[in-house]
Amino acid sequence: MASVTIEPSRGTAPGTQATPSPEALKRTALEEAISPTSPSVTFPASEPLELDCGKSIGPFTVAYETAGTLNATKTNAILLCHALTMDQYFFRTNPVTGKPGWWIDMIGPGKPIDTNRFFVICANILGGCMGSTGPVSINPATQLHYGLDFPVITIRDMVRAQVRLIDHLGIDRLFAVLGGSMGGMQVLEWAAHFGDRVHCAVPIATAAWHSAQNIAFHEVGRQAVMADPEWAQGRYQAEGRVPRRGLAVARMAAHITYLSEAALHAKFGRNLQDRDSRTFSFSADFQVESYLRHQGSTFVDRFDANSYLYITRAMDYFDLAGEFDGVLANAFRGTKTRFCVVSFTSDWLYPTHESRKIVQALNAVAANVSFVEVESDKGHDAFLLEEPVFFRTISGFINSAASRHGIAPARSAA
Amino acid sequence: MASVTIEPSRGTAPGTQATPSPEALKRTALEEAISPTSPSVTFPASEPLELDCGKSIGPFTVAYETAGTLNATKTNAILLCHALTMDQYFFRTNPVTGKPGWWIDMIGPGKPIDTNRFFVICANILGGCMGSTGPVSINPATQLHYGLDFPVITIRDMVRAQVRLIDHLGIDRLFAVLGGSMGGMQVLEWAAHFGDRVHCAVPIATAAWHSAQNIAFHEVGRQAVMADPEWAQGRYQAEGRVPRRGLAVARMAAHITYLSEAALHAKFGRNLQDRDSRTFSFSADFQVESYLRHQGSTFVDRFDANSYLYITRAMDYFDLAGEFDGVLANAFRGTKTRFCVVSFTSDWLYPTHESRKIVQALNAVAANVSFVEVESDKGHDAFLLEEPVFFRTISGFINSAASRHGIAPARSAA
Repeated sequence: MASVTIEPSRGTAPGTQATPSPEALKRTALEEAISPTSPSVTFPASEPLELDCGKSIGPFTVAYETAGTLNATKTNAILLCHALTMDQYFFRTNPVTGKPGWWIDMIGPGKPIDTNRFFVICANILGGCMGSTGPVSINPATQLHYGLDFPVITIRDMVRAQVRLIDHLGIDRLFAVLGGSMGGMQVLEWAAHFGDRVHCAVPIATAAWHSAQNIAFHEVGRQAVMADPEWAQGRYQAEGRVPRRGLAVARMAAHITYLSEAALHAKFGRNLQDRDSRTFSFSADFQVESYLRHQGSTFVDRFDANSYLYITRAMDYFDLAGEFDGVLANAFRGTKTRFCVVSFTSDWLYPTHESRKIVQALNAVAANVSFVEVESDKGHDAFLLEEPVFFRTISGFINSAASRHGIAPARSAA
Repeated sequence: MASVTIEPSRGTAPGTQATPSPEALKRTALEEAISPTSPSVTFPASEPLELDCGKSIGPFTVAYETAGTLNATKTNAILLCHALTMDQYFFRTNPVTGKPGWWIDMIGPGKPIDTNRFFVICANILGGCMGSTGPVSINPATQLHYGLDFPVITIRDMVRAQVRLIDHLGIDRLFAVLGGSMGGMQVLEWAAHFGDRVHCAVPIATAAWHSAQNIAFHEVGRQAVMADPEWAQGRYQAEGRVPRRGLAVARMAAHITYLSEAALHAKFGRNLQDRDSRTFSFSADFQVESYLRHQGSTFVDRFDANSYLYITRAMDYFDLAGEFDGVLANAFRGTKTRFCVVSFTSDWLYPTHESRKIVQALNAVAANVSFVEVESDKGHDAFLLEEPVFFRTISGFINSAASRHGIAPARSAA
């Protein structure tokens, strides 16, 4: 391991240092991508990251956030793996959007994952655009944004970068690795390749591979971005352009897949938006159209188009069984990790049958696994929302495993 | 009724006149839109079509095809209503694509709908781009393509144009009106507003309204088209441009919804396209990507982008209950039409629960209705494919109703 000093290179971590002033917030996505307000660690060119594609990248930066306090024995660390368009701001206010951390309902003092008990780490993924090295970063060889010169990465590459961060933080073994959607894919990679460093693994609303339908939806999004002339073959930053419309269309298409038909019906139905009757035009007559357009346009302000291409590609390439001679169970043979697999009934992006495949593979190697299918009509997004059964599942699993693992109960709740 | 002479204005009808020579085929979509090879009838400006939006359109043309022979009592006519991107070429080879008629497995001599027994008519919808008046047509007021000056139309408007055609053909009462997807919406409008002219109605894989999720998918497609600078605010034809990339993205997104997850998995899975391993690039590594790109690019050659906007808008606006004080059953009160409602188990675009709503409304008014949910893993597209149970259902319903209706059995099969 490279270092055992927890030394944020920039910014502040919540709970331990001062919260940034409001003026420090509302940075542009580009500012945050190049110089994150969160802590980060940069590994020098002499310690590059070897990638699945055969190339390596270095120097590279991992931007991360933490909540809670690492105990003296360093046994209470939880690594949180984020989803496609999320980032390290699970707890602290997002400096670009000004919105609260994306999982403050789940993680915090007195929350299901109690930061009075656990030390939670979340790193912006490799390929992301919130401070970790990605296509928006400056390529030291050219002093320009990487753009399409960035190597095509995999979920396993993302995990390799996280391993370097965990080494840097001086943590030998994580109490838990936890994440939903693409975060769940990372959890599975951790368990498969670094199982001796993971006490518990919690893959949520995910799959051990990306299905044909999911590849198809991603391809639509990528084609929408690349069809936008402002994308300029990926060199839009150098040319002072932004492929706003293409990226917005990609986000709109993806967003539909995050919700269930029932959720869309309950939320919008066929209700009209600020009008009494159809306008017989192509304006956003329906609330659902207005909502989608809003989702598309706000996404562009916070996310990098090339990052979107690279991360969706990494998800498409994900096939854990493929890394183990086509047999998923081989990924977990001999594992001592305790698993809790969670799916949601109305999730059609990562339906329950995908979670069952993971559970079956774990059962085939006699792993310690519990599986919960949560009844919900909220679709894939349920994992980001306050679902009582889901929260109790996570809290129950994590806290009972922690007690058996000898992690002290929560200090007095804030 | 305006006329009782069946006189094709151009081209030939199958079975009754000579089949066009191969050289006559392979016309461009624009040629076919302006001057169809199929028969067509043009209603003069003095007989305009009144539309739901409050405007009227005239002159207007309805291009149509027929198969079989109208009997002397004119009792054996079936009106076939086509889906979003289909056209009147259900039987004869499509002059633009060169492909066989889109329902020759279902309709023809000796087929489930036997053209030795029935006279089948299919008209290109109002707003379409295969010869009926639509946004690609020349606006007599400006001598330019209508583009966005075309009025926003509804499913009911499409049916109004069909009624004019049926009048023109001198047919008082249709033996059956039949169609899948958007065609099924037209069937429901016929039954609701012109029930005394419809002996049987067969709505297939459809719904009495467009759901929030379906509006959302359509909105993604429209935004993809309108995001393409080549769309040029709808004036692309006048400017000699084509919004190829935007329309292709729209088609790709829509195409996913026509298939089931199981069908995509069975058809492609995660198979690679003409390569042994991942290329670590954004080329079409996976067969499903290659397939979708092909679907997108070939669609552009046969379909008009503005037509796509108008037709999807008409579908979004469709809400039959809304035309009857919000009570769907009111649409069918007192109906004497016999209904056969068909859905497919894996259709997630128009799932079975939407068909059940139609059946419940029909039951509420004691209508004569049979309902068949066909087991299929092919998704929405199942209605266009050879599904034996589906074919037997249609054949059984149509032929037994025809016998009770006194329509002579099929002449000797060809």
